[in-house]
Amino acid sequence: MPDLRWLLDPRLRADTVPVIDLSLCAVLLNDDANYPWLILVPRRPGAVEIIDLAEPDRAALMAEIAQTATAVRAVTRCHKLNVAALGNQVAQLHVHVIARETTDAAWPNPVWGKAPRKAYEAADRERLVAALHGAMAKK
Amino acid sequence: MPDLRWLLDPRLRADTVPVIDLSLCAVLLNDDANYPWLILVPRRPGAVEIIDLAEPDRAALMAEIAQTATAVRAVTRCHKLNVAALGNQVAQLHVHVIARETTDAAWPNPVWGKAPRKAYEAADRERLVAALHGAMAKK
Repeated sequence: MPDLRWLLDPRLRADTVPVIDLSLCAVLLNDDANYPWLILVPRRPGAVEIIDLAEPDRAALMAEIAQTATAVRAVTRCHKLNVAALGNQVAQLHVHVIARETTDAAWPNPVWGKAPRKAYEAADRERLVAALHGAMAKK
Repeated sequence: MPDLRWLLDPRLRADTVPVIDLSLCAVLLNDDANYPWLILVPRRPGAVEIIDLAEPDRAALMAEIAQTATAVRAVTRCHKLNVAALGNQVAQLHVHVIARETTDAAWPNPVWGKAPRKAYEAADRERLVAALHGAMAKK
């Protein structure tokens, strides 16, 4: 259900590439090769908090978190998933789904404010986006 | 639906006080006066990731996140909510629901690894637990 009033926040747009559009969320890959890191953005104008969403949208958000987390884990075989809706710096409601390894640049801490962003090599990014898209489109 | 095989992780137990038991989650107050900070622990033995939960439990988790977030915001009138399932240090699945202020000890960063834990004064803790319990029990 496209909402033509909805626009992706410019900072999220600048830092990510699109992976897939699910029913509720635009699913983006954060262009940071330190961690496989998806960002889910519900296409609902003005939503800042999870509790700004209507109940059916909250249920859809949980379903899409599970779908993307399952895909990320299948593709990366990661040790741990981190799931978070913070929004202290970018107000537009967005949910991080991050694959963590015990060897990654921030482990065991949360990823924010740790390793400087490191853009993917183009071929690596394309391969990862294709794999994630494939794992999610199958559902 | 009590599950007698479920036991709260000892580190979560040491750092928190109980607020209320919802259908799925034990709701705990993190004993850190820097931020009003709830921790929701689904009473499901062995659950580490959100996607370890069966679909009905995931739906219940989202409903209880919304219920607790609504209560925290009503009680604290906070500027922002942070919601996160990380689990890098304590494996037992738990979800943080944290009230953030632009004047708090970590803003605009995530709270983890910032200000040293500061236990509540007993009377303040009791008052906050009672207010949160009241806001959640009403639902």
